[in-house]
Amino acid sequence: MKLNYGMVGGGPGSFIGAAHRRSINLDGEAKLVAGTFSRSHEKTLATGRELGLKADRLYKDYREMAVAEGQREDGIDFVVVVTPNVSHYEICKAFLQQGIHVSCDKPLAVSTAQAEELVRLAREKDLLFLVTYTYRGHVTAKHAAEIIARGDIGRVRTVMAEYPQGWLAHEGEDGGKQGAWRSDPLQSGDANCLGDLGTHVENFVAGMTGLKIKRVLAKMDVVVPGRVLDDNDFVMVEYEGGATGMYWTSQIAIGHDNSLRVRIYGDGGSIQWFQEEPEKITVIKKDGALTEHHRGYPTIAPEAASYARLPSGHPEGWFEAMANLYGSFIKCLKAKKQGSFREEMIDFPTVEEGAEGLRFVEACLRSARGGNVWVEMK
Amino acid sequence: MKLNYGMVGGGPGSFIGAAHRRSINLDGEAKLVAGTFSRSHEKTLATGRELGLKADRLYKDYREMAVAEGQREDGIDFVVVVTPNVSHYEICKAFLQQGIHVSCDKPLAVSTAQAEELVRLAREKDLLFLVTYTYRGHVTAKHAAEIIARGDIGRVRTVMAEYPQGWLAHEGEDGGKQGAWRSDPLQSGDANCLGDLGTHVENFVAGMTGLKIKRVLAKMDVVVPGRVLDDNDFVMVEYEGGATGMYWTSQIAIGHDNSLRVRIYGDGGSIQWFQEEPEKITVIKKDGALTEHHRGYPTIAPEAASYARLPSGHPEGWFEAMANLYGSFIKCLKAKKQGSFREEMIDFPTVEEGAEGLRFVEACLRSARGGNVWVEMK
Amino acid sequence: MKLNYGMVGGGPGSFIGAAHRRSINLDGEAKLVAGTFSRSHEKTLATGRELGLKADRLYKDYREMAVAEGQREDGIDFVVVVTPNVSHYEICKAFLQQGIHVSCDKPLAVSTAQAEELVRLAREKDLLFLVTYTYRGHVTAKHAAEIIARGDIGRVRTVMAEYPQGWLAHEGEDGGKQGAWRSDPLQSGDANCLGDLGTHVENFVAGMTGLKIKRVLAKMDVVVPGRVLDDNDFVMVEYEGGATGMYWTSQIAIGHDNSLRVRIYGDGGSIQWFQEEPEKITVIKKDGALTEHHRGYPTIAPEAASYARLPSGHPEGWFEAMANLYGSFIKCLKAKKQGSFREEMIDFPTVEEGAEGLRFVEACLRSARGGNVWVEMK
Amino acid sequence: MKLNYGMVGGGPGSFIGAAHRRSINLDGEAKLVAGTFSRSHEKTLATGRELGLKADRLYKDYREMAVAEGQREDGIDFVVVVTPNVSHYEICKAFLQQGIHVSCDKPLAVSTAQAEELVRLAREKDLLFLVTYTYRGHVTAKHAAEIIARGDIGRVRTVMAEYPQGWLAHEGEDGGKQGAWRSDPLQSGDANCLGDLGTHVENFVAGMTGLKIKRVLAKMDVVVPGRVLDDNDFVMVEYEGGATGMYWTSQIAIGHDNSLRVRIYGDGGSIQWFQEEPEKITVIKKDGALTEHHRGYPTIAPEAASYARLPSGHPEGWFEAMANLYGSFIKCLKAKKQGSFREEMIDFPTVEEGAEGLRFVEACLRSARGGNVWVEMK
Repeated sequence: MKLNYGMVGGGPGSFIGAAHRRSINLDGEAKLVAGTFSRSHEKTLATGRELGLKADRLYKDYREMAVAEGQREDGIDFVVVVTPNVSHYEICKAFLQQGIHVSCDKPLAVSTAQAEELVRLAREKDLLFLVTYTYRGHVTAKHAAEIIARGDIGRVRTVMAEYPQGWLAHEGEDGGKQGAWRSDPLQSGDANCLGDLGTHVENFVAGMTGLKIKRVLAKMDVVVPGRVLDDNDFVMVEYEGGATGMYWTSQIAIGHDNSLRVRIYGDGGSIQWFQEEPEKITVIKKDGALTEHHRGYPTIAPEAASYARLPSGHPEGWFEAMANLYGSFIKCLKAKKQGSFREEMIDFPTVEEGAEGLRFVEACLRSARGGNVWVEMK
Repeated sequence: MKLNYGMVGGGPGSFIGAAHRRSINLDGEAKLVAGTFSRSHEKTLATGRELGLKADRLYKDYREMAVAEGQREDGIDFVVVVTPNVSHYEICKAFLQQGIHVSCDKPLAVSTAQAEELVRLAREKDLLFLVTYTYRGHVTAKHAAEIIARGDIGRVRTVMAEYPQGWLAHEGEDGGKQGAWRSDPLQSGDANCLGDLGTHVENFVAGMTGLKIKRVLAKMDVVVPGRVLDDNDFVMVEYEGGATGMYWTSQIAIGHDNSLRVRIYGDGGSIQWFQEEPEKITVIKKDGALTEHHRGYPTIAPEAASYARLPSGHPEGWFEAMANLYGSFIKCLKAKKQGSFREEMIDFPTVEEGAEGLRFVEACLRSARGGNVWVEMK
Repeated sequence: MKLNYGMVGGGPGSFIGAAHRRSINLDGEAKLVAGTFSRSHEKTLATGRELGLKADRLYKDYREMAVAEGQREDGIDFVVVVTPNVSHYEICKAFLQQGIHVSCDKPLAVSTAQAEELVRLAREKDLLFLVTYTYRGHVTAKHAAEIIARGDIGRVRTVMAEYPQGWLAHEGEDGGKQGAWRSDPLQSGDANCLGDLGTHVENFVAGMTGLKIKRVLAKMDVVVPGRVLDDNDFVMVEYEGGATGMYWTSQIAIGHDNSLRVRIYGDGGSIQWFQEEPEKITVIKKDGALTEHHRGYPTIAPEAASYARLPSGHPEGWFEAMANLYGSFIKCLKAKKQGSFREEMIDFPTVEEGAEGLRFVEACLRSARGGNVWVEMK
Repeated sequence: MKLNYGMVGGGPGSFIGAAHRRSINLDGEAKLVAGTFSRSHEKTLATGRELGLKADRLYKDYREMAVAEGQREDGIDFVVVVTPNVSHYEICKAFLQQGIHVSCDKPLAVSTAQAEELVRLAREKDLLFLVTYTYRGHVTAKHAAEIIARGDIGRVRTVMAEYPQGWLAHEGEDGGKQGAWRSDPLQSGDANCLGDLGTHVENFVAGMTGLKIKRVLAKMDVVVPGRVLDDNDFVMVEYEGGATGMYWTSQIAIGHDNSLRVRIYGDGGSIQWFQEEPEKITVIKKDGALTEHHRGYPTIAPEAASYARLPSGHPEGWFEAMANLYGSFIKCLKAKKQGSFREEMIDFPTVEEGAEGLRFVEACLRSARGGNVWVEMK
C-alpha cells in the first residue's frame, strides 16, 4: 500500500522542497499527487508538470488545495509544508482543519501561540503531525538516545551543543534567496539564526538526552552590519534536575558548512555526535576507553539499527535521515488506516516538540532583550 | 518523461537489488515495471507484489522476460542485472539480443572472453551498457578526475590504492549469503576478493587518472583456512608511460568496513580520496599546501559539481553515487529516444570498462599462478 | 654562556617541577644549581642529591634561599616557582626583592591585589618575569598570532574557546595529590577550574588575537557532590571593539584529556587550533578554502618558524612549547647581562599577563556570585 | 650518577646530531664531554666551544678520539655516531676496538658484511650497541608490541607498512645537504630510499610483531630524472610462519612529511599506528569495536607506560621517543658499571637488529636487480 501526499511550497529553486521529495522517494512508500508549489500559479503548474502531476491537482493556493483534497475520495493522505517559516501556521491549520495529516518543516511557526494552536488542533482532530528536524532521523542519533536512556554514560551532567554555519558571513554576497528570507523578520519571525539553527539544537539535545530545559540565558547578536535579526547566538541552559548546557549557533562562522555538533557528558561517560560525519558516534567511558560506534556495527542499539539501508562503510547521509523520519510517520499513517496505530509507534518529532522549539526561541528572545538574564521556559 | 525498467535478481534478502532500486528512486526518473527477482517464481511474485508491479510482468526466468519485454509495445527501456557474477554474461546477452539497454553490476562477467562478447554485442546493437562501479559516481571522484586531467597535480608518478574489508575474516561466521557465494568458484569465477574488490580498484584508478595498465605482478593469497578462493591480494602495477602503482585488496582486514582509498602522486602534487568519507578530497601541492575540497564548495570542478543534490555539509553518500551513474545513463537513454544522443554525453562506466576489469583479473591470476611474475595486460 | 637557575617546589611526585626542568634541559642553556623543592628539608635534600646539586644550595625554605642566592657572587640568574597557587605571591615577592628574575607557573597568584603588587615590584626592580602559560610557546600558536595580526582572517568577530578535562570527574577516585590541592580553597584560592584552566584560555585567546576583554558573564558550577570549588564553567565574553566570545572550562568532561581548543572567526576567515594536535592549525578563508599549516612548512610565519627544532612530520609537543617560553626568557636574560636587551625582544607571557588572568578570574567570580550578570574587567 | 659521552658527526647544520644531543639532554642522565663533530677540525672546535666542551676533548678525527678516550681514566662511557651511512662501519669499529659502547644512527652500515663484523666485535668485547631506530621508542609502539605479544589481535595474518615522504620530489630543489648525500651512492651505499626509510619499516614491523622475514620481492624505482639511487620502493614480504606483508617507501610522495604508518591485521583484531600522531594507537577487535589507546591511559601496557614523562593530553613526540631509546641504553650501561646488568634489561634496538636491516636491504637489491623475483633473507 502506497500513500499519496501533497506539497505546499517547494517550487523552482527551492532546496528544501526537492529534498523532502527525494527523501520520500528513497523508500517509495508515498507518492506525490497534488501541490501548490509557489504563490505563482504559473510556477506551480510548471513544477507540477515537471514532476508528472495531473493538472487538476495543481492548486492556485493552499486554501483551495486543503479544501479540495479534503473532499476528494482519493484525497492526499498527508501534506508536506515547506514554505518560509512565517506561513507555516496558516497553512498547517488549513490542512488540519480538513482532517489531513501534516508534515511541516521546522521551525513549526513563528510564535508559541501559533504553535500551541497547532498542537491543540492536531489533538482535537486526532491527526499525526511530523516536524522535520532532519538530524533526529540519523541511525547514530537514535542510537545515542537509546544508549543514554539505558544508562551507558550515567546521569547527564553537562551538554555542549553547537550549530555553526558560515554561509551568511557576508550580507548580500552569499545565501541568495534563502539568505534573504531568513534574515527578514516578515518571513522568519523575530529570530533568524536562533529560529533556524537554535531550534535544531534544542530539539536534538532534547531528543538525545530526554532533558527538559528549565531556564535559559541568551545573548543574541547581530554581527553583520545592516542585518536586523540575530546571526550569532550564545545560550546558557539549565535543565530540570540540575544538568547544565551551553549552545552556540552562528551563520557567520566561516569554515563551517552545517556543523551541528553535540557532546553529552554524564557521570559515567560521554558521547560526541557530529552531523557532518553522521555514520559514527564516539563514546568514552569513565575509565578512558574511547570507542567509535559505526552505523551497521553490532554495537548499534537494536531499534536504531533497524533503520539502516546499507551495510557499514557504505555512507548514508542527509536524505536517509529525513527518510527515516518519513519512514516512521508513514508507518504510523498506514497503521492508522488499518486501525492498528498505537502512540508508542511514534518515532519522529511531533507538533509538541515543534511547540517546545518556539517556547525555547521566545524564552531566549526575552532573555536577550532583558539584558541576558535568566528566563524560565514554560 | 519517465523511463521504465526491469530487474533480474534482487529478490528477498538481496542487498544490491534494493540498493539499485533506491538509487534510481532518488531522482524518480525511471520506474520499475518488470522483474525476475529470483530463480524461484514464487519469490519473484512475492517481491513483485511488494513493489507494486503488475503480475503479467513478473517472469519465470530472465529469458522469458527478455523476449516478452523486447516484444511489448511498452517494454522496458533498460534492464538492471544484479545476480551473482557467474550469471551476468548469459543474462546481459539475452537482453542485448532483444535490443534492450543494460545496467549490470560489476564485475561484468567471469572471463575476458565473456566480457568481450558483451562489448561486441552492445556495439553491434548500438545499445548503452552501464557497469555499476558505484564509487565512480561520487562528486568528489568526478572532481578528482577533472582536476587531474587539467594538470593540477602534474604528471602522475605513482598510485597507492587499497580496498580492505574485514567481514570475511572468519569463514562461516560472518557474511551469510553473500559471503558464501563470493568465495564459491561456481558463482564467482576464479577470483573472489580480486574479482569483487580488485575490479573496483582497477576501474576507480583508471577513471580518476586516465592511466592504462601495462603489466601486473600479483600475489593472491588464501588466508582463512578452508577457503578455496583468494581473500587477500597484493598487486604491483606498471602503467603505460612509466607510472607505477600498488594495489591491496582484502576481505580479512579486521577494522575496515568498506575502505576503498586511493592516493595519486604526481610531480606537482597529490590527491587523497577515501570512500568512507566521500564528501571531500585532500589535495596537496608541491609547496606543501594541504587543501580540502568539499562537495558543494566553489572549488569543485563544474561538471562534477553539477551532480550535487544538497549544499555542502549535508552529507551525500552511497545512494547518491549510484544515482549519479544512473543519472547519466538515463539522460543518455532519453537522448537516444529523442535522437539527440552523442558519445561525449556518456559519464558512466561502460561495458568496455567492465571488460578491462576482467582483463585485469585474468592477468593477475596468470601472474599469481606463475609464481608472482610480471604479466602484460592486453 | 649558560645561565644558572634555582627552583622552589618540584619535589618528589611533582609533575610540574620535573616538567620545567626537562623543558629547560632540552636546549641546555641554563643549569639547575639551587633549590627548595619541598616544605620538608629532608625531601629537598633527597631531590637535590638526585639532581646532582651541591648540598650548600639546598635550602630549608624559600626565604633563606632568596636571601642567600641574592647575596652570592655566583647566585642564580633566575628562579622557577612551581608551588601550589596560593604560595606563588609570597615566593615570587621574596626573590624579586632580592633582585632575582622570576619564572612562575600560572595562575600568577590568587588575587588581583597580589598580582598587581608583583607587577609593581618587577617594574621597580627592572626584573624579567615569565608566567609559564605553556601553550603560548607552540610554534603553531605563535604562527596563528602572527597571521591574525597581519590580517589573514580579517577583523575578529567571535571566539569559541574551551578547555575541558575529565580527570576530576569523580571526587577522590582520580587526580591524587594534584586533584586534592586544586579543589582546596586554601591552596588554590576561590576558583579551581577557572583558575587553573580559565586563565589558560583567557591568556591564550589574548595572545592569539590581541583582543582585550571588556566584560564577562560567568556561570561557575560545582558538579561533583561534596566539592567546594567550581569544576565546570561557562563564560560569555565581550571584547573591546565589539567582538564576542564564549569560553568553557571543565574538569568533569569525561573523554577529554587536556583539550584546550581555540577557534577564532574573523570577517575574512577563521582559524582552529587544538592543543592535543599542536603541530598544525587549520585556516579557512572566506571563499571556503580549508588549509592546514603544519609546523615546519614554508607557510609558517617567519618568527614562529624560527622556534622549530625538528623538520615537519617529526612531532614536537608539550616540552618544546615550554622550552620555547624559556628560550625567549633566557635569551632576554642573557641580553640583559650583556646590556643589549630591548623590550621588543620579549616573546613570552609576562607578569602583566599573569595579572590580567587574575582580573579575569575575579571578574568571573563577581559575575557568578552576582547571579550570572555582566561584570566589567578592569 | 651521570654518564659521559662523546659524539662523532653532528657539526654545524647537522639536524641529527643536535637531535641526539637534545634527546639525551631531556632526562639529563648523560653529559656530552668529547667530540669530533666534523671532518674540518675548525668546525669541530667551533661546535665544541658552542656546546661548552673542553678543548682537549675536541679531536681531529674519530680514530684519534677513539684511542684517546679509550685510554683516559675519565674517558667517555659511550660514543654517539651520527655521520653519513657510509662511514658508520669504520667509526663504530674504532670505538668498539677501544672498548667503548656505541650508539649509531641507522642504517647501521652499507653492507651486511660490515654489519656482521660490528655484531661480532660488539659480542667479542661484550659492549652494548644501540642502533637508533627512533620510532621504536614511542610509548605507543612499545604498547603495540606488548599487546600483540600477549595475543590481543590473535595470530598476525598480514602487515601493511608504509613510509612516504615528499621532500625529495624534485631533484636539487629541496632537501639541501641531506638530500644530496642521501642520493649519492658514495655516501649512502647502493640503496637510498630503501636504506633510509625501508630499514625503519623493516625494524619497526619486526619490533612490533616479532615476525621474521623469510623472503622479499622488491621493486625499487628511480622516479626523479637524473637520480641514480631509488626514491620509490614497493616490497612484498613473506614472513616465517606464513604471514604476508606489503611495504612502501617513498621520497617523492608529495603531501607526506614523515609518514611512517603501520597496520597489523591478526585473526582476532588489528592495530593501526601512525608516526605523525604517536600519542595513540587504534585497536579494532574482531567484533568491530574500535578503540583508541592514548599514551597515559590506564589501558596502556605497563612496561610501555613506564616510559611516559607527561600525563595524557600533553603531547610527547620525536625527542621523547629517542630519549626512551637512550633511557634504556643508559640504564643498561649504568647497570653494567654496577655489575647488575642482565640481557633482559635491553629495551632498545641492538646491533643485531641493525644487521638485520642490512640483510633486508641487500635482499631487496638482489630482488630488484633480478627483475622483481623472490629472494630469501638469510
